[in-house]
Amino acid sequence: MDWPERIPAGDWLRGASAVVVLSVDVDAESPVLARGERYLNHLTTMSHQAYGPRVGVPRILDLLDRYRLPATFFVPGVTAERWPHVMENVAERGHEIAMHGFTHRHPVHLSEGEQREEIERSLKCFFRFGVAPTGYRAPNWEMTRHTLDLLGEFGLRYDSSLMDDDRPYAMLSAGRPIAELPPHWLLDDWEQYAFLPEPDVGQQIEAPSKVVELWSAELEAMRSFGSLCMLTLHPFLTGRPSRLRGLEEFIRFALSRGDVRFARADEIASAVLGGEDAPGTGPAPQS
Amino acid sequence: MDWPERIPAGDWLRGASAVVVLSVDVDAESPVLARGERYLNHLTTMSHQAYGPRVGVPRILDLLDRYRLPATFFVPGVTAERWPHVMENVAERGHEIAMHGFTHRHPVHLSEGEQREEIERSLKCFFRFGVAPTGYRAPNWEMTRHTLDLLGEFGLRYDSSLMDDDRPYAMLSAGRPIAELPPHWLLDDWEQYAFLPEPDVGQQIEAPSKVVELWSAELEAMRSFGSLCMLTLHPFLTGRPSRLRGLEEFIRFALSRGDVRFARADEIASAVLGGEDAPGTGPAPQS
Amino acid sequence: MDWPERIPAGDWLRGASAVVVLSVDVDAESPVLARGERYLNHLTTMSHQAYGPRVGVPRILDLLDRYRLPATFFVPGVTAERWPHVMENVAERGHEIAMHGFTHRHPVHLSEGEQREEIERSLKCFFRFGVAPTGYRAPNWEMTRHTLDLLGEFGLRYDSSLMDDDRPYAMLSAGRPIAELPPHWLLDDWEQYAFLPEPDVGQQIEAPSKVVELWSAELEAMRSFGSLCMLTLHPFLTGRPSRLRGLEEFIRFALSRGDVRFARADEIASAVLGGEDAPGTGPAPQS
Amino acid sequence: MDWPERIPAGDWLRGASAVVVLSVDVDAESPVLARGERYLNHLTTMSHQAYGPRVGVPRILDLLDRYRLPATFFVPGVTAERWPHVMENVAERGHEIAMHGFTHRHPVHLSEGEQREEIERSLKCFFRFGVAPTGYRAPNWEMTRHTLDLLGEFGLRYDSSLMDDDRPYAMLSAGRPIAELPPHWLLDDWEQYAFLPEPDVGQQIEAPSKVVELWSAELEAMRSFGSLCMLTLHPFLTGRPSRLRGLEEFIRFALSRGDVRFARADEIASAVLGGEDAPGTGPAPQS
Repeated sequence: MDWPERIPAGDWLRGASAVVVLSVDVDAESPVLARGERYLNHLTTMSHQAYGPRVGVPRILDLLDRYRLPATFFVPGVTAERWPHVMENVAERGHEIAMHGFTHRHPVHLSEGEQREEIERSLKCFFRFGVAPTGYRAPNWEMTRHTLDLLGEFGLRYDSSLMDDDRPYAMLSAGRPIAELPPHWLLDDWEQYAFLPEPDVGQQIEAPSKVVELWSAELEAMRSFGSLCMLTLHPFLTGRPSRLRGLEEFIRFALSRGDVRFARADEIASAVLGGEDAPGTGPAPQS
Repeated sequence: MDWPERIPAGDWLRGASAVVVLSVDVDAESPVLARGERYLNHLTTMSHQAYGPRVGVPRILDLLDRYRLPATFFVPGVTAERWPHVMENVAERGHEIAMHGFTHRHPVHLSEGEQREEIERSLKCFFRFGVAPTGYRAPNWEMTRHTLDLLGEFGLRYDSSLMDDDRPYAMLSAGRPIAELPPHWLLDDWEQYAFLPEPDVGQQIEAPSKVVELWSAELEAMRSFGSLCMLTLHPFLTGRPSRLRGLEEFIRFALSRGDVRFARADEIASAVLGGEDAPGTGPAPQS
Repeated sequence: MDWPERIPAGDWLRGASAVVVLSVDVDAESPVLARGERYLNHLTTMSHQAYGPRVGVPRILDLLDRYRLPATFFVPGVTAERWPHVMENVAERGHEIAMHGFTHRHPVHLSEGEQREEIERSLKCFFRFGVAPTGYRAPNWEMTRHTLDLLGEFGLRYDSSLMDDDRPYAMLSAGRPIAELPPHWLLDDWEQYAFLPEPDVGQQIEAPSKVVELWSAELEAMRSFGSLCMLTLHPFLTGRPSRLRGLEEFIRFALSRGDVRFARADEIASAVLGGEDAPGTGPAPQS
Repeated sequence: MDWPERIPAGDWLRGASAVVVLSVDVDAESPVLARGERYLNHLTTMSHQAYGPRVGVPRILDLLDRYRLPATFFVPGVTAERWPHVMENVAERGHEIAMHGFTHRHPVHLSEGEQREEIERSLKCFFRFGVAPTGYRAPNWEMTRHTLDLLGEFGLRYDSSLMDDDRPYAMLSAGRPIAELPPHWLLDDWEQYAFLPEPDVGQQIEAPSKVVELWSAELEAMRSFGSLCMLTLHPFLTGRPSRLRGLEEFIRFALSRGDVRFARADEIASAVLGGEDAPGTGPAPQS
């Protein structure tokens, strides 16, 4: 396999020591339904996932408002269709909406045709909401080389699924420049908080204090390396009261540093690709 | 699948910032026997579960007495038959007894006929003890839409198995109003304390200090959202000395807030359904 | 299944608020070889287990000497045969040696004939070392009713495998009185420290500070209930430097209470069975 | 199976209370590709592993420079071929390079012929870089007796895969003396930090503070036993910002003791085998 060729990247730090992107994956029921339609009948499992769009998203939106912070919401097509208010509310508050597959099936398990269909259905669904996404994140971050090529073909400007750096970079996808904004498992709430026996989506419930420490320690050390702190949150997990308060603690820690700014993913992508900010990419970065 | 229709709910907070329900699932040997009758011959496994009714329940009852707190005990039919003293002692101390399936098999794995039989056998068994339950919790919280419909059909007033909110709500089940009192994995002792290799019921043994912190942080944050803190305890786990002391610490933390009250599940259900407290639903709320 | 009938027990606390038994399961290679002879060729796995008798046991013996504490060593026959010095050294230092199966296969997976053979081979092996054991612990604590009956038949005076109490009790086994000295997973080092990928014997490596806290909190709370703190240690785990120091911290904590004493298992069994201490059961209890 | 015969070992402590070897296993993509070539197409999995040679190794090299510490890098042949710069940079900075299998397949799963081939291919590959390794570590530490014999046959002077001590020792391998420098799971970053769902290489993400405590407590206690603290680091894990800082904290703790020195593995092996240091084995030990 040829690795995607890297190309020179623009200045995205803009004087900050590190940048935080608050990315919110609004998976809702999609990861469960991707494992089988039979889970439609598991009322508890469905309700566990529905907590995200029903309770978690509004609370996260309120928290962002309170701190006047920008965020990027990755929304699977299935979620957009089941919970149209989520799309509307997130857009109204001025946040970015980006793609996260249609059914939340992992690209590594899909044929090339199925991968294309996932993107086409997502785009079509988003257009109905008046949303023209510029970014993509693979479900479970598990993409193939073909997924990446499709992103270029469909004109997307960034991906957020690869983990070979903690700083964004630019590369060629299907001959077009695309930015990579690397996430990581350790900056994700799923590995710390997800517990559900059937289907088994995780078996661990850590205290928020551990998670705040984990994330704050990473951000603190990232300030020495000029890294991108791509935090990944799931409303059905982080929307719970004490976890939301943990997120707030992390935000306050980041703000207290004085040299960390918050940005939407599309703003970082534009800077990496050397262009100006796309119009309407939302709130100005914090300083 | 149509989701159950929500209907307006009554005032259940009654001036408190959050309400704690101490719910005790007296599973005893039932979850093990539900996996196979062969475990009857596993003396250690059986003894591990028997610790609950034999040692854990009396200690929890004493702790509740000491703090004069109300609680709700969810008792599988199998436990009621194997440990009749549990039913009698819990009732004598003035606590609520509610349904938790007969065999502790998970409804999602049962036919509609088997689900009905589980409820009928439970009711019949409870009536022999003079107990007329008004509430239900699905074993492992894994219910189907059909389970919910059965609850309405049998005249139950509340369920405590769904997780799409952390505040109680009212909905229609088989055309009758029913209250949902949402539990959650993070407010359960099982995920933190359960270890048993055969059958594998869990593989984690956390320190009580972590669990107290987990639950206290959740309750503290719930005070901002007016939530129901539905704590779920298993006597074969929380009955162990240091965990019991951890529970006591949590209780003292809750009482120290000044604006958190404790209630039985049926009292909350009555308030949600807009009615008066059923007669004899137990102690007055703490302030 | 009929449960073993309980009979009145003698005074084993003797004025203490709780009693600690330091029990050491010298499993060495036996649990690995019980999974398959092929592991004889896994040099790393074999060496991982050999650390116990080679390094861990001498260090634990030295620690016990330093604090002049009695202990009970449960030794599988396979270990006694592979590591005869362990049997000799433990006996020389005045500690108790008790049975732990011959091959470390779990009784729940053995036929009645195989169970009998395990005990007969163990006794024969122990007699060659001049050891006449009075106690038994089932490998992985997983015994059946038949195992218990065999203990009475072979004249053993106590078992340490059942978990339906945290205080010792007396019962009838094959018509003879036998004492039960209950262990528990939370007072075992295995669940906190064991990591080995092939065969998978565990996947967790906790810091000793967590384990000291877990055990100390349990002992502290046991002082209110007059419990038996049956600590279970594996030399291939607890023999590592920092874990040994953790054990020492726990010992110092116990001694600092002033009302906790240490005893060998056979001394407790004698008291429970109402008799005098067997001659030569070792050091006097600490105060 | 006959165990390798032990022979008298030279003085490797040289007045220190304990010695730390910083060993770095540059696995990169090899453990993943050893599970199947299909992972070449899993872009995220490949990128997750590529973080090691791409970002982690340079950062670790810089940290070692800053503290002027020697280290030993165990490099699978696959990594050397895919990432030649790693070999060159590590050698330039004066660190030791040792063998870690060619494909990272575990020797316990290979035939004798395959095991031989692994070593021959590794040596051939290393020679192309001008590296003549004197040490070996089995992938996943899972070696057989045959692996050990091959080490003697190929003239290697030490192995670092066995766990039956925490002090180095000498033994005969194919009639030649060879040193064993024992590692252990608890001094490895993998068990604390590795999370990757497909292939499943681990499911745990601990905070660096826990890991620093785990390792520092072990080193502290090792000072009483004159042990070798064989720390094992993986650049794709420890190369992340907060974990690198955790490693630095551990280093500072070790240096603060005053009687702990750092050494390369080959220096320890030479001392154990009673010889002088091999010429050019790198930086002098710290005091």
